[in-house]
Amino acid sequence: MKEKIKVGYIGLGRRGTGMLRCLCQMKDVEVKYICDINEKKVEFMLNDIKEKGYNQKPKGMTDYKEVIAKKDIDAVFIMTGWNSRIKLAIESMKAGKYTAIEVGCAFDISECYELVKTYEETKVPVMMLENCCYGRDEMMALRMVKEGLFGEIVHCNGAYHHYLNPCEFFRDTGNDLFDKGHYRLEEYLNRNLENYPTHELGPISKILNINRGNRMLTLTSFSGKSRGIETYMKDHVSPDHPLAGKSFKQGDIVTTIITCAGGEQIHLTLDTTLPRAFYSREFTVRGTKGMCEESGKDMCTFFLDGMKENDPEEFNNRTKFYEKYDHPLHEEYARMQAKGGHGGIDWLVLRAFVESVKDGVEPPIDVYDTATWLAIGPLSEMSIANGSVAVNVPDFTNGRWFRRDNPNTGKYSLDVITSVPEVPIDPQ
Amino acid sequence: MKEKIKVGYIGLGRRGTGMLRCLCQMKDVEVKYICDINEKKVEFMLNDIKEKGYNQKPKGMTDYKEVIAKKDIDAVFIMTGWNSRIKLAIESMKAGKYTAIEVGCAFDISECYELVKTYEETKVPVMMLENCCYGRDEMMALRMVKEGLFGEIVHCNGAYHHYLNPCEFFRDTGNDLFDKGHYRLEEYLNRNLENYPTHELGPISKILNINRGNRMLTLTSFSGKSRGIETYMKDHVSPDHPLAGKSFKQGDIVTTIITCAGGEQIHLTLDTTLPRAFYSREFTVRGTKGMCEESGKDMCTFFLDGMKENDPEEFNNRTKFYEKYDHPLHEEYARMQAKGGHGGIDWLVLRAFVESVKDGVEPPIDVYDTATWLAIGPLSEMSIANGSVAVNVPDFTNGRWFRRDNPNTGKYSLDVITSVPEVPIDPQ
Repeated sequence: MKEKIKVGYIGLGRRGTGMLRCLCQMKDVEVKYICDINEKKVEFMLNDIKEKGYNQKPKGMTDYKEVIAKKDIDAVFIMTGWNSRIKLAIESMKAGKYTAIEVGCAFDISECYELVKTYEETKVPVMMLENCCYGRDEMMALRMVKEGLFGEIVHCNGAYHHYLNPCEFFRDTGNDLFDKGHYRLEEYLNRNLENYPTHELGPISKILNINRGNRMLTLTSFSGKSRGIETYMKDHVSPDHPLAGKSFKQGDIVTTIITCAGGEQIHLTLDTTLPRAFYSREFTVRGTKGMCEESGKDMCTFFLDGMKENDPEEFNNRTKFYEKYDHPLHEEYARMQAKGGHGGIDWLVLRAFVESVKDGVEPPIDVYDTATWLAIGPLSEMSIANGSVAVNVPDFTNGRWFRRDNPNTGKYSLDVITSVPEVPIDPQ
Repeated sequence: MKEKIKVGYIGLGRRGTGMLRCLCQMKDVEVKYICDINEKKVEFMLNDIKEKGYNQKPKGMTDYKEVIAKKDIDAVFIMTGWNSRIKLAIESMKAGKYTAIEVGCAFDISECYELVKTYEETKVPVMMLENCCYGRDEMMALRMVKEGLFGEIVHCNGAYHHYLNPCEFFRDTGNDLFDKGHYRLEEYLNRNLENYPTHELGPISKILNINRGNRMLTLTSFSGKSRGIETYMKDHVSPDHPLAGKSFKQGDIVTTIITCAGGEQIHLTLDTTLPRAFYSREFTVRGTKGMCEESGKDMCTFFLDGMKENDPEEFNNRTKFYEKYDHPLHEEYARMQAKGGHGGIDWLVLRAFVESVKDGVEPPIDVYDTATWLAIGPLSEMSIANGSVAVNVPDFTNGRWFRRDNPNTGKYSLDVITSVPEVPIDPQ
């Protein structure tokens, strides 16, 4: 058990810097090294930490290998682009460091096997920082499912309805450091797949006990036309723009159906390149005795057998349910909201990792979860490339999924209901 | 051109009687015969017409063959259960009567071919009375798509989220005539398929110009577990109930993906046996420049490229859009609402058929539309039975779909924008 942990932090893009600011506020974390291939980003962040008055004095570096090799750190955060996360995570695990990686997907399924093999050889834990697992509604649903209130779970939905087109790919706010050449652009030009499944699939996997009593069996993905970005370019940018007239491979809307060993079906939608009114993750859990359904603009409805149907009073009734079924980890939700991004969930997922490192236990999202979620991308790519045939989802546990009945009992467990531990925030 | 048409009406169940009451109020319709295999229902409805003061004096019958054989009628309505509609429609067409059938699905694909063959041999029109094609939001979206406001259409969603379990299958309100032994029960016991696709697929087909420039190519259906009804029986009825312990074949949630020749994808959900908070058809149209999306409890959001995203003011903004883009056929919407069921759409779809008969033209939903929509049921059954493989959607037009550029121009056309004709309501 460690009182305080020392960490290295690699990748200072838009997401990386946001999460780093969260981390810097934790009394029990010492940020020893921050690293980016772009020296200007390192300088920017060193200044930012000073200016914001965080009680941290990291050393700046540009070579991730040096960070990973350091003897005086317990853990490494890999917050680099999609194209390097798994490789760096494997190197970090081999160097004996607890490893956290930002959400994403693999290019090839072999990377996922390699990640699992590295864990099984080194026993060094890795955790995908899937913040949506700690969403308030997602955790309330998780609790209600564990308490049997929804009955037997039959179906789950999730989606990434997030119009990225103009804001992510072409934004130029004059801040060259973060705005230009978003790394996702190359992905959209060259690949066609469910490229961002984990925000939905993370919480759903936990609800369905994936890798602990259940597993995903098959995956089938359907991609429609790719027209959104091209139309946007035609309408909004000049013909001499470097992307004008380019052909994008990524389908505008990709639908994925995953079947599970328990007979449940998971339904995912990727929807990022057509104009739409509002962001939504469509988080939906359907059971024989109850449901929850996110719909509309950040509205969430809970329903239990016996309640009155089609009652306008019950639409978007989450607040009423918080009173009774809020997850204990959200007791201090308001305080966390102020400290972390995305309504507190960034803070919570970072705490989940930090507490696991401190206690020397497996993180609540372990290597098997991480590998399974990373695999969805390449599996959907394979399915689409073959005309939307079903492909098999690997069993990364190698048959242990139905024997792994030892739930993770860490402080931020997603397997058992835990109460919020004391949250150590550095006073400023 | 007829001033007034004479009709026979077969099938007096819950739906049949509701639609008949609409029809009875039309000045230009003479209801000559009403028919049901159950004599009590005929008597009930003859009394009902008298009591309500409708200006109609139909003759009651119990043998549909007699109705179809009558020389003094122009058209026949087939409002019987799922298991007899197509057979009766074919007989009616062979007898030379314009034929209307209630929504539903075929048992076998051969029935759909037979329907088309009958039309091509007799040239007698048949129309599925898909009322949702005349929904206000659906028609506004249709108009906006035809006017190019949504850009190129990429994706459409529809669903039948309607919890039928306790209310449809087991309801016993003491009115034996309509409540017991709902015909859908046998379907749910014995089959597993997308059994109710047309409410969503009808409007979507019209938006995507199916059978007139576009067609459906493949269909893939996924069915999860069947647990909803069995759990309901266990929890709510006594063990000696005739359905207690019975095993139901119908999956609780069935997802269907249809790919189209134009590259569009259509996504359907059947969701009728798990408890849920509210009814929804999830009507969604996504284009390169705009969208509409029904979500939550009867809320519909329209969005055009250039509008502000994530603006709470724009959630459920249909009313604002009615001012500018309401379909002309809905000018008299308020008046129709009072006369027909389901917010006026029953009235509108009946008018569409009646006007076609009066003018001697093809109805806006023709035999090819009807056959295609009826085919979805057995196609999804085939797909599920084969482990969710893609099956081919027949081309009932036999290659004419890309040459059928002559849109239906009837008074209630769904191909061109028409204004509402005078609505002849009988004063009471």
